Amino acid sequence: MTKLVNQFFALSDRHHSFLPMKKLLLVLLLCCCVSCQKKSNDEVKKDSTSSENDASPQLLLTKSGIEAFRQSDAALLNNSTNELKRQVNRILKDAINIPLPKDAGGGYTHEQHKKNYASLYQLAISHRLTADSTTLAYIKKMLKGYADLYPQLPLHPKAKENHPPGKLYWQGLNEAVSLFYIIQAYDLSREFMTPEERKHVEDNLLRPMADFLSVDSYDIFNKIHNHGTWSVAAVGMTGMVLKDDDMVERAIRGSNKDAKTGFLAQLDQLFSADGFYAEGPYYHRYAILPFIAFAKAIQQNRPEEQIFSYRDSILQKAVKTLLQLTDEQGRFYPINDAIKSKTWDSPEVLFATNIAYAAYEDPTLLPVIKHMGKVSFTDAGAQAAANINSETPIVYDRPSQVIRDGVEGNKGGIALLRSPQFGSGQLQAVFKFSTQGMGHGHFDRLSLSVYDHGEEIIPDYGAARFLNIEAKRGGRYLPENKSYARHSIAHSTVVLNERSHYNAQVENSEDHASILVDAQVQSDRWQSVTAIDSTAYDGSDLKRSLVMINDSSITHRPFIIDFFEVTAEEKTSMDLNYPFEGDIIHTGFDYTRPLEKEILGVQDGYQHLEVLAKGQPKDGTNFIKFTFLQAGRFYTISSLTDQNTEIRLTQTGALDPEFNLNSQRHLLLRQTDKVHHNFVTIIEPHGFFDPINETVGQPEPTIRGLSYERQGNVDIVSFEADGKTYLYVKVRENDRLKNHRINYNKKTYTWEGPKYLIKIP
Amino acid sequence: MTKLVNQFFALSDRHHSFLPMKKLLLVLLLCCCVSCQKKSNDEVKKDSTSSENDASPQLLLTKSGIEAFRQSDAALLNNSTNELKRQVNRILKDAINIPLPKDAGGGYTHEQHKKNYASLYQLAISHRLTADSTTLAYIKKMLKGYADLYPQLPLHPKAKENHPPGKLYWQGLNEAVSLFYIIQAYDLSREFMTPEERKHVEDNLLRPMADFLSVDSYDIFNKIHNHGTWSVAAVGMTGMVLKDDDMVERAIRGSNKDAKTGFLAQLDQLFSADGFYAEGPYYHRYAILPFIAFAKAIQQNRPEEQIFSYRDSILQKAVKTLLQLTDEQGRFYPINDAIKSKTWDSPEVLFATNIAYAAYEDPTLLPVIKHMGKVSFTDAGAQAAANINSETPIVYDRPSQVIRDGVEGNKGGIALLRSPQFGSGQLQAVFKFSTQGMGHGHFDRLSLSVYDHGEEIIPDYGAARFLNIEAKRGGRYLPENKSYARHSIAHSTVVLNERSHYNAQVENSEDHASILVDAQVQSDRWQSVTAIDSTAYDGSDLKRSLVMINDSSITHRPFIIDFFEVTAEEKTSMDLNYPFEGDIIHTGFDYTRPLEKEILGVQDGYQHLEVLAKGQPKDGTNFIKFTFLQAGRFYTISSLTDQNTEIRLTQTGALDPEFNLNSQRHLLLRQTDKVHHNFVTIIEPHGFFDPINETVGQPEPTIRGLSYERQGNVDIVSFEADGKTYLYVKVRENDRLKNHRINYNKKTYTWEGPKYLIKIP
Repeated sequence: MTKLVNQFFALSDRHHSFLPMKKLLLVLLLCCCVSCQKKSNDEVKKDSTSSENDASPQLLLTKSGIEAFRQSDAALLNNSTNELKRQVNRILKDAINIPLPKDAGGGYTHEQHKKNYASLYQLAISHRLTADSTTLAYIKKMLKGYADLYPQLPLHPKAKENHPPGKLYWQGLNEAVSLFYIIQAYDLSREFMTPEERKHVEDNLLRPMADFLSVDSYDIFNKIHNHGTWSVAAVGMTGMVLKDDDMVERAIRGSNKDAKTGFLAQLDQLFSADGFYAEGPYYHRYAILPFIAFAKAIQQNRPEEQIFSYRDSILQKAVKTLLQLTDEQGRFYPINDAIKSKTWDSPEVLFATNIAYAAYEDPTLLPVIKHMGKVSFTDAGAQAAANINSETPIVYDRPSQVIRDGVEGNKGGIALLRSPQFGSGQLQAVFKFSTQGMGHGHFDRLSLSVYDHGEEIIPDYGAARFLNIEAKRGGRYLPENKSYARHSIAHSTVVLNERSHYNAQVENSEDHASILVDAQVQSDRWQSVTAIDSTAYDGSDLKRSLVMINDSSITHRPFIIDFFEVTAEEKTSMDLNYPFEGDIIHTGFDYTRPLEKEILGVQDGYQHLEVLAKGQPKDGTNFIKFTFLQAGRFYTISSLTDQNTEIRLTQTGALDPEFNLNSQRHLLLRQTDKVHHNFVTIIEPHGFFDPINETVGQPEPTIRGLSYERQGNVDIVSFEADGKTYLYVKVRENDRLKNHRINYNKKTYTWEGPKYLIKIP
Repeated sequence: MTKLVNQFFALSDRHHSFLPMKKLLLVLLLCCCVSCQKKSNDEVKKDSTSSENDASPQLLLTKSGIEAFRQSDAALLNNSTNELKRQVNRILKDAINIPLPKDAGGGYTHEQHKKNYASLYQLAISHRLTADSTTLAYIKKMLKGYADLYPQLPLHPKAKENHPPGKLYWQGLNEAVSLFYIIQAYDLSREFMTPEERKHVEDNLLRPMADFLSVDSYDIFNKIHNHGTWSVAAVGMTGMVLKDDDMVERAIRGSNKDAKTGFLAQLDQLFSADGFYAEGPYYHRYAILPFIAFAKAIQQNRPEEQIFSYRDSILQKAVKTLLQLTDEQGRFYPINDAIKSKTWDSPEVLFATNIAYAAYEDPTLLPVIKHMGKVSFTDAGAQAAANINSETPIVYDRPSQVIRDGVEGNKGGIALLRSPQFGSGQLQAVFKFSTQGMGHGHFDRLSLSVYDHGEEIIPDYGAARFLNIEAKRGGRYLPENKSYARHSIAHSTVVLNERSHYNAQVENSEDHASILVDAQVQSDRWQSVTAIDSTAYDGSDLKRSLVMINDSSITHRPFIIDFFEVTAEEKTSMDLNYPFEGDIIHTGFDYTRPLEKEILGVQDGYQHLEVLAKGQPKDGTNFIKFTFLQAGRFYTISSLTDQNTEIRLTQTGALDPEFNLNSQRHLLLRQTDKVHHNFVTIIEPHGFFDPINETVGQPEPTIRGLSYERQGNVDIVSFEADGKTYLYVKVRENDRLKNHRINYNKKTYTWEGPKYLIKIP
C-alpha cells in the first residue's frame, strides 16, 4: 500500500494541476487510482501466464538478474537503480514524441529518435523493477508509435551517396543501434503486452527493421567492421526474441551462413591476437558494446556456440586490452583519432567489464567495476555487484606489457613500459608501432607518449574535434584533424624531410606494419623494447629502443632512455619531436626568439606550427637539457647533440582560422644533411613544486652526463647520475647466448644476453 | 613496557648497524636501554619539579592542550600527531647542522637555518607528546649550538643596503621568524632542561635575538608592516617566557610604549575596517600567522588586554575575510602579486582558523578546519578537534558581500557577488576597487574576475613568479611581473590610450582609492554593486556596475551584467579587456588572423600581447557573442557594439625571452576617439560538455538580444532570454524613495528604489 501511495504522489508530481486540490478529493482519487492499478496488474498477470515460456526475457537481463536488482542491497546495485529512477522520472515528464525523420546527424529529429531508444530501454528495465503501470503504458505507446510509423518510411531524406543509409536516421549505423536497444526493451516488456500489441510491434517494427538492416543493407551487415557488428548484434538479438533461427544464424555466420562474414568473422578479424583494436582504444571502447552484448545473448540462447571461448577467449583479451590502454586516471590513451579525457567510466565499458567478469569469472576486473561505483542492468552486472565488497582492491593493476597487433599477432603492436605501482605515481611510456588503424589512424610509427602520476608529460594530440559541439563544424572531425593531428609532427617520433610517414596516405600505410625486434618487460628494475620501421619512408629505416630504468640507487624516480636510430638512403633532414605539457623552466641551450612570425614548414602539419625559439647547443657541450614543470613535478629531456644539431621550440596555432587547434608545444631536435643518426635522449622525472607549502624539491635532474658510442655490435649509452657513471649496453644482433664484451675507460666489461646495465665502479 | 620496546625499535631503525645482531644481544641491549630511559625520566622529573610553576608552557600550547593531544582519540588530532611522527622521524635521521651564516636567500646556510627552526619547533611538540629522550637530547643540543654561535655573529655578510639585515640570515625578517619558532620550542622544552642549560640559552640566544630585533633593528620593530608584526610577535612571546614585562610591553605598544607603534598600532592600521589586508589575500595569508599567534599568547599571559575584542574584534574579521577571499576550491583569489593555486590548506591558515575558532567560539569556521583534516598543535587546535564530528558541515558558506578597504572602511574595497550555493556550482564575481596594496599592488582598478564551479572563467593573472624555483631568476619576482602582470591590461578592466592606471606608478596610486557607490548583495535573485574611479586617469571617470541575476525563470544558470561607463576629457582610445580561460568555440563576429606577427602595443603590458585576431561586429548586428568552453561548461560574453567597435583576441607570449609568461588569452573590445562610452556586456554560463558520455547540453547562450538606452536619469539594459524581454533599470542618482518611471515599447513602467528588473509581458 505504501508503494502505491508513493506512486500516486510521483504521478501527481508530474501533473501540477493536481496540487491545489483539497484533501478529500485527493483521497477519492487515490482510491480510484489504487483500483485502476489493481486492475492493470490483473490484466498483466493473465497475459504473462498465458505465454510465460515464450515471453520471459531472453537477452542480457533475465529473470534471475531482475530478481537480484529487486532484492539485493548491494551498494552498486542501489547506485544503479537510484540513477535509473532519476532518469525515468525525467523521461516520464515529457510527452512521447516520435517525429517524422528529417534532420541529419545532430539535428532535431535525429537527436529525438536517439533519445527515444535510450528512454525505451531505461523504461523497460525500470518497469521490470517497479511494475509501475504508467511506465508500462509509456513503453507500449512508444513501441506502438514506432510500429505505426516505420512501415511508411522511405530512405531518410538526408541520406548521402556512398554512405549506407537508414530510415529513421541519415545513416544505417544509427538504425542498427536503435534496434539494438529497442529489441532489448521489447524483450523485457512483451510479457506484459497483449498478443495483439506484440503482433503489431513484431510485424511492423522489429521484423521490418531487422530486414532493412540485414537484407536491404546487405553490404554493411556483411562487412568486417564495427558498423557491421552493430548490425549483426541488433538483428541477431531480434532473431532470438522472435525465435527466428534463420535470422540468428545469419547474424552469427553472415548472410551466406558460411562464417565468411557475420559475427564470428568479425571476432576473427577485427581484433588482433592480443585483443587490440587497430583504430585504437577510443574506437575500441565504442565497438566493444555490440561485441560483448551479442556474445552474452548468444551464450544465453545458443550455449553450444561456446562463444566466450571462441578464438582462444578473444573477447576476454579484447576487454582486458582495452582496460590496459588507460592512464592512471582511467583515461584511454588518445592513440589515433580520439577524443581526449574519455575515460573507462563510459557506459560501453560498464557493460563490457560486467559481462566479461561474469563470462570469464575474472576477478582482476572487479577493481574497475568497484571504481565505477555502479553496474549495468544485466545478469552479469548483478553478479559482479554481489562479488564486490570492502575487500575488493580499488587500484587496477597496470603492469608493463606488449600488446601485439595483427590477427596473427605479427604486425607490430603497442608496448607499455610502466614503473611499479607504488602509491599514486606510475611512470608510463606508451610506444606505438602498430598497424595504421584504417581511416582513423595517425601517421606516427614508433611514436612515444609519456604519463607520470596520471598526468600527460609527452602527450599524444589525439583528434582535432569538438565532439557534438555544433559550432565546431557540426561536432565532426575538423579540417585540422587531417592537416595537423594525424601527421607525424603532431607526435613524438622522427620525421624525415618534413614529410609525414607514408606521405600521409592511408592507402600506402594500411598494408605495412612496424616490426617488434625485442621486448623485455618482466623486470621491475629495467624494461626495454625495440621496434623498427622500414616502410614509413622508402629506403629509410627507423629504429627506436626505449628503456625504463627503475633503480632508486641510481635516481629517485624511474626514467626513460630513448634511443632513435635513423638510416637514410641519401642526405636527409631528420626531426625528432617531443611534444610536452607544462611550463618551460630551464632551457640548457642557446636560443633566440624570432621577432617576426616564423612557421616551421609548409605541409604535413608543419604549416600549423609557429617557431617560438631557434636554438643550438651551447659551445663545449655534447648534450642539451630541457626542463619543464607539469602538474607540480619537474621533467628534464636530456639529448645528445653535435655541431649539426638545431633546436626548435614550436607551438600550434599557425594557419588556424577558426581557432580549432588546441595549444601544444614541442621540443624539436633537428639534424640536417645526414644519412645516419642516433638520437639519444633521457627523459627524467624529478622533484616537485608544492604551491600550498611553497616548497620545491630537486628542481635539477639527477642525470648530468650523457654520451654514446658503438663498439662492434654493441651500442653503449653512458650516463652520469649523482656523480656515478652507468653504461646501458645493447647488442645489435639479438644473440642471447654469447658472452659480450666492451672496453670502457681501459677496463673490460663482460655480460651475457642482449642488454645490460653496468655500473662503473 | 610496550612503549619502550617500540621506542627501541624506532631507535634501532635509525642505526642500521644494530640490525644484524643476534637475539640475545638484542635482549641485553633492550634491558640496558630501558634502564637508561628510566634514569633519564627521573632526571627530568627532578628538574621539572624544581621549577614547575615557572617553567610550564606559557604560549600557544599549554598543559591542557598537551593533555588533549596525548589522550584524545579525535580523528583530526590523530592525523596531526601521525604527520608529526613522520616528520620527527625524518628530522632525527640527520645529524644537527648549524652552519656559519654565509648564503643569501635560497642558498645553503639560509635554507639550513630555516630548516633548523622548523625542526626545533616540531621536536619540541613531539617531545611533549612522547617524552622521548632522544628527541629531548636533540632539542637541547640544537639550542645549545645556537646559543654557542649567536653571540659571535656579526651582521650577515650578504646583508643589503637599504634592507633591514639579520645575523643568521641576510634579512631581518627571517631572524624574526626564527625567534618566533625558537621561543615556542623553548617554551615547551625548558621544563626538562637544567637551570644551567636554560641560562645558557636565555642569556646567549633568546635575549640577544630579542635585543637584536627590538633594539638594533628599532625601525623594523616599530614599523606598521607585517615584517614588524613578525618582530613584535617574536620579541613579545620571548618576553612572556622570560618574564620580561618591559619586553612584552614594548612588543604590544611599541618601543616608546605609546601604542603609536607595536602590535596594537599594527592591528589598528594594517587591516581595513572589515579585516581586509591591502596587499591582497596571498600576503594576508602569510601575515595572519604572527598576528593570530601573538594575540593568543597575549590572551594567555595578559588576559586584561582583551586582545581578541580589540578594535571591534578585528582579528576575527581578518580571519573570516581571508577565508572568504577564496574560490570554491579554497584557492585564494590571486589579487595583486599572488602565487596561484595557493589554497587555505596552508599552515598559516591552519593556525589562524584554529585560534580564531577558540577565541571567538565561532562555529562557522569549523567546516574549514574539518576540510583541512588536521589541526595546529595549539590549545585552540585541540579545542577545535574536540568540537568537530560527523555532523559538522563540510561546505563552507560563501555568501555575497562587500569587504570595505581602508582603516575607516571608506577607501573602496572588494565586492563578492555569488550565486546561491546549490550542489557544487557557485558563480562568483570578484570586483576589485580597493586601495593599491603598496609595492605588491596591481594597477587594476574596477577589475573583475569570474569563477564558476570552482574554476577560473575570467581569470586574474596573479604574479609573474615561479616561487622558489632557482632556474627562474632565483624564484624571485620575474621582470615580467613589472612589465606585464601588474599592468591594467593583464586584468579585466578598462585601459585608456594603452596606458595603465596611474601610469603604473605606485607613488601616484597609493593615496587614492575607488569609491563604492552602492551595493545590494542580500537578495538571492539579483545582486548588484557599483563603484567609480576618478583618479586612475587624470580627468577621466571610470564607473562599473555589476549585476548578478539568478532567476531560473530567465536563464538556467545565474549570469552577470557588466556595465562599464567611461567619461574622458578628450578623445580617447578605450579598451575593455576580458581575459578568459578555455577553448574558443564560437566567435560571433567577423575577424581575420594576422599573417605577420602583430603586437598589441609598445608599453604597459601591451608589448607582451600578440594579436591572434582582429575583428569587427557583423553588419546589421548591435552586439557580439563570444563563446568559450572551460572545464566542461560553456560561457558566452555578449557585448554591445557600434560601428566604431574593434575587437582583438590577444595572447601573452610576445617579448618573453625566457618563457616566463603563462599563457593567457583575452577578448578585447576597443572604442577609439571617444569621450564617452558605455560598455554593456553580459557574461553567461550555460550548458555542458561531458566527454565521458559524449553529450553536449545547451551550447548556445539563453540570452540572444542585448541593448541599452538612457531615459533621463535611468540606464536601461534590455536583454532577451528565451524569447522574452527583460529590462534592468538603474537610476543614476541614488534616490531610494522616489517612484521612477520609464517608457518602453509605448508602455510605461514604474518602480521604487534605485534598481529594478522588469519583465516585459
